[in-house]
Amino acid sequence: MKQKSDASPAAVLLVHCPDQKGLVAAVTSYLFRLKANIIDLDQHVDIESEQFFMRVAWELEGFELAANQISNDFKKEIADRFEMSFQLHISGTPMRMAVFVTKMSHCLYDLLQRTISGEWNVEIPLIISNHTGLRSIAEQFGIPYFHFVINPDNKSDQEEKILALLEKEQIDFLVLARYMQIISKKMIQRYPNKIINIHHSFLPAFIGARPYHQAFERGVKIIGATSHYVTQDLDAGPIIAQDVEHITHKDSVGDLVRKGKDLEKLVLAKAVWNHLQHNILPYKNRTFIF
Amino acid sequence: MKQKSDASPAAVLLVHCPDQKGLVAAVTSYLFRLKANIIDLDQHVDIESEQFFMRVAWELEGFELAANQISNDFKKEIADRFEMSFQLHISGTPMRMAVFVTKMSHCLYDLLQRTISGEWNVEIPLIISNHTGLRSIAEQFGIPYFHFVINPDNKSDQEEKILALLEKEQIDFLVLARYMQIISKKMIQRYPNKIINIHHSFLPAFIGARPYHQAFERGVKIIGATSHYVTQDLDAGPIIAQDVEHITHKDSVGDLVRKGKDLEKLVLAKAVWNHLQHNILPYKNRTFIF
Amino acid sequence: MKQKSDASPAAVLLVHCPDQKGLVAAVTSYLFRLKANIIDLDQHVDIESEQFFMRVAWELEGFELAANQISNDFKKEIADRFEMSFQLHISGTPMRMAVFVTKMSHCLYDLLQRTISGEWNVEIPLIISNHTGLRSIAEQFGIPYFHFVINPDNKSDQEEKILALLEKEQIDFLVLARYMQIISKKMIQRYPNKIINIHHSFLPAFIGARPYHQAFERGVKIIGATSHYVTQDLDAGPIIAQDVEHITHKDSVGDLVRKGKDLEKLVLAKAVWNHLQHNILPYKNRTFIF
Amino acid sequence: MKQKSDASPAAVLLVHCPDQKGLVAAVTSYLFRLKANIIDLDQHVDIESEQFFMRVAWELEGFELAANQISNDFKKEIADRFEMSFQLHISGTPMRMAVFVTKMSHCLYDLLQRTISGEWNVEIPLIISNHTGLRSIAEQFGIPYFHFVINPDNKSDQEEKILALLEKEQIDFLVLARYMQIISKKMIQRYPNKIINIHHSFLPAFIGARPYHQAFERGVKIIGATSHYVTQDLDAGPIIAQDVEHITHKDSVGDLVRKGKDLEKLVLAKAVWNHLQHNILPYKNRTFIF
Repeated sequence: MKQKSDASPAAVLLVHCPDQKGLVAAVTSYLFRLKANIIDLDQHVDIESEQFFMRVAWELEGFELAANQISNDFKKEIADRFEMSFQLHISGTPMRMAVFVTKMSHCLYDLLQRTISGEWNVEIPLIISNHTGLRSIAEQFGIPYFHFVINPDNKSDQEEKILALLEKEQIDFLVLARYMQIISKKMIQRYPNKIINIHHSFLPAFIGARPYHQAFERGVKIIGATSHYVTQDLDAGPIIAQDVEHITHKDSVGDLVRKGKDLEKLVLAKAVWNHLQHNILPYKNRTFIF
Repeated sequence: MKQKSDASPAAVLLVHCPDQKGLVAAVTSYLFRLKANIIDLDQHVDIESEQFFMRVAWELEGFELAANQISNDFKKEIADRFEMSFQLHISGTPMRMAVFVTKMSHCLYDLLQRTISGEWNVEIPLIISNHTGLRSIAEQFGIPYFHFVINPDNKSDQEEKILALLEKEQIDFLVLARYMQIISKKMIQRYPNKIINIHHSFLPAFIGARPYHQAFERGVKIIGATSHYVTQDLDAGPIIAQDVEHITHKDSVGDLVRKGKDLEKLVLAKAVWNHLQHNILPYKNRTFIF
Repeated sequence: MKQKSDASPAAVLLVHCPDQKGLVAAVTSYLFRLKANIIDLDQHVDIESEQFFMRVAWELEGFELAANQISNDFKKEIADRFEMSFQLHISGTPMRMAVFVTKMSHCLYDLLQRTISGEWNVEIPLIISNHTGLRSIAEQFGIPYFHFVINPDNKSDQEEKILALLEKEQIDFLVLARYMQIISKKMIQRYPNKIINIHHSFLPAFIGARPYHQAFERGVKIIGATSHYVTQDLDAGPIIAQDVEHITHKDSVGDLVRKGKDLEKLVLAKAVWNHLQHNILPYKNRTFIF
Repeated sequence: MKQKSDASPAAVLLVHCPDQKGLVAAVTSYLFRLKANIIDLDQHVDIESEQFFMRVAWELEGFELAANQISNDFKKEIADRFEMSFQLHISGTPMRMAVFVTKMSHCLYDLLQRTISGEWNVEIPLIISNHTGLRSIAEQFGIPYFHFVINPDNKSDQEEKILALLEKEQIDFLVLARYMQIISKKMIQRYPNKIINIHHSFLPAFIGARPYHQAFERGVKIIGATSHYVTQDLDAGPIIAQDVEHITHKDSVGDLVRKGKDLEKLVLAKAVWNHLQHNILPYKNRTFIF
């Protein structure tokens, strides 16, 4: 998957279980018996918690199981024996991504450009916003734009409608591209580790509102951006990607905002890319990115 | 200009002359007499060549000369005395930028997004290409797209037509956003230090074609991108901006191309930004960026 | 100073006053009248607070005032008129730096190597520690090592002795090279903006104890180090320098500690270098580094 | 090895062979049968050359073969069957590293500090130099210093003596810490992929002499350093590590030299660390670093 991103159909298996001897041997012997050609394999043992994590990808050509049989067979033959939780992803069908925005366009344009140009194999069936300002961009790219006014009184109702829309459109994951609304517990539970947010600071520094102003006030010499899965703790979910940029005293808050936009675009794109590649295994509040 | 990018009208003066005592005093005393409020001042002495360079910006509000009188007056009062060459830029009227592309869209989208969103104060009156593939993007953004087929037989004629078009549109500077054609001597002389190119390597490593393949073959651990003013020496003009990204042996050539696109976008944007701010003083094959 | 670090004797003037028109002209005209050859000049206006900051360096050769007359003359002629505060530094005599350590040697070795090899023009008359473990390094480099056992009962007395020792040795500034003791209010007031600390995190993230453990727990993808002037607010003084390093889930806490040591060395060295060059103007909780 | 650098005795196996199905299964099943507890496993397939590379580390406690039996057994059971070349390393005995220097001390101090402080598990039985200037540092650290005057007439003879000395001291690998002499073919053949050099540029830019001067002349905005295994092509061996630093037009050649020293120290240390951990598999002119 990594080496041959445009290759023939492939399977990606993400595995997690308590550590014990023989796990890699068990999985790879299983795949070998079924004539898998492994493209990529990476594993990690978290020493403190004694947990085992693995990502293995193999070509489906020549594999002795049909794609729709693998999951059941692997569960029966391997996963149950080692108390593994696992995800299986079959390449080919692009994932379906919903983009949430408010007023700022830079991340939205970036996501759209990567999708339209074929850099990413993903579909964007809809854009959702609590404002109307970016509707013209959606139209420019021919993507349906749904406007949900949100205020304290209607928030719960509107989220129900959004959830119904996401269900109907068979959305796989959500990207909050500078969406300035707190996501409800219900939506988070419906999409666990499937909502990717970009926060415009180097978390855990400058949690909350106006991080560039906070950074300027503190006099830091570096600013950052952080992409993470959304959990119920504000800006505290598992971090997927971070990056930073040096600044000087010559940079005004406006300069920080301008420079930060580039960080936000890149860091969010990096997180989405890894999500699309099924490279990420979240565990508690950390992520293992293979 | 730097601190107050959205401020009231301002002037930027870029000065270059042989070094001698009293230069900063002469210029700043001149501006003080005319009641200038200096926003930003930076100077540099190149020790080896004994040359002096300065950028100074001041607000026009309260300044005792009208904008269109400054150049003549400064020449008479200061520049002639010290054998200075200088450029004067008055903020307000946006510069006019022509974008040249071939087949790749990432830099084009990036330039367009920064312009449309108001991040940059610039006009893009036209996009020029030797291919038709990106015409739909131009149309999407409502910008005229001119297609000039170029081959060895017609190259000279086509460049004449391009030059005429640039003249007619009163273009201030050119941006080669992955434009895969050598620029002629004539065009370079018409736009000296006004043609900005992006090269997809960390120059001077990997000059010429297919730099990501070259980088992969050499087994480097870092890739880069370089933006420079175009001169008649291929990929050897004064460098404006460079940036790099760490890679590993897991990155295929395709990964380098993908990661490199982000570098190219950022580095080109940084160069254009500095050009728009009149921050750049080229000297021989170097640039001083204030 | 910057361009010609090994040049003939030079003066550095750091200036701070409320912003107004004509400040650069006044200072540079003053220097020009006295036949100064300006080596470097940089200025900054803090827009929000309307404060002006400038650093200017000039060669003393050919200057019409003796080094010991400059301060009084500048005060009378310029500083008083504009309500300037200023510092004047004359190059030649190396500054005297006291190094404080506890148990970790990496920063100490780094400071010693830069001094011994002539990279820095500084003297280290003594090393002070609350432990004995690094005494052998001091002996190896022939530098007096003073051991002050510190506990809650004797802390105040011991600090008095340390202060007396620093006075006696005519110490100009203090470097806390992983010194694991809170500095008292009295010592901070005696050496305002003259005590440089290195904190092993990207402040303001992970203030306080065991920042690498905190970083590991939070699952960040980047670690950092921060050098700052010590104030009475723990880890909250004006930041001088910061740097970061990417990490992955494969890095254990031990790896973070190991990688962090290199960051600490570099960031502390960068801060000390700028202090030695008189490049730093602290203002409130920020630093302007020219 | 990676996760538990201070753990009980462990084995590291580095494997290379033509790619085919079942390789990971074969090796891991072999280790599982012998009751290995795998600490770390990483593999890579070079798609173009169809070669397979793997690094696997396991604890020796509980392993059913004695350390001195593993190599023969693995060869017979696995390696011969798959035409594997492999290296086996048993932790415990520190490797023996010879350091070569000329006049500059920064890399030498850095290597010594990491060794003395216990950051690295390595022995430095001797320092070899073609000058006498750094002898005092060797004495300071209690390490034998051997001075070999080298000129065109005696070069061959002196290298013979150096080789004999290295043999006698049972040196495992050589580190050229800014050693300004070309290494002979004979020595390279004796220590293949066991001589680590630091070059003070971002290779392949600025090969050869005075790279910082070259960088200054070219007007680059970033400088770098490169550590690589020495081959007979000057500065063209397999790259192990690279890093870079942004510079500006304010940096003189002297500033580049000063800033470059820090890069050189860090990049060389990173390469040596990976060599000590047996993380590196060189293949043709590339390195796979697990």
